[in-house]
Amino acid sequence: MKARVTVTLKQGVLDPQGKAIEGGLKSLGIEGIGTVRQGKVFDIEVESADKAKAESVLRDACERLLANTVIENYRIELAE
Amino acid sequence: MKARVTVTLKQGVLDPQGKAIEGGLKSLGIEGIGTVRQGKVFDIEVESADKAKAESVLRDACERLLANTVIENYRIELAE
Repeated sequence: MKARVTVTLKQGVLDPQGKAIEGGLKSLGIEGIGTVRQGKVFDIEVESADKAKAESVLRDACERLLANTVIENYRIELAE
Repeated sequence: MKARVTVTLKQGVLDPQGKAIEGGLKSLGIEGIGTVRQGKVFDIEVESADKAKAESVLRDACERLLANTVIENYRIELAE
């Protein structure tokens, strides 16, 4: 089963990488962009065909490796 | 207008970061994960309220800064 995990910074957490991108876009002359915040995405192939089991494995992976839950939120989407 | 840009590696492009995550999950004893591929996500606030204009600004940003179109695909999603 395919899954996509999206990890984004929590609101209020500073994002220097996003700020650098804002600056970069401005120097390139690309107008009309406000704030930018960068996150990560993981496309994961899960062996289990059972949705509940796949989600529990992915939640475990997020809590222990993929996301720093002090400053980041994660979202798990399962596809068919 | 809020937008989300997702940048992922094209098929066939090696992803050492993804491979390292696979290894990391295995060493943590998390079973049942197949391949992992990592990408980037950008949450962007666009000033224009016009969808077509916002998309054209974002496409420009992707082509020139956010994605390396030789090895990466990008997808633009506009929200209300």
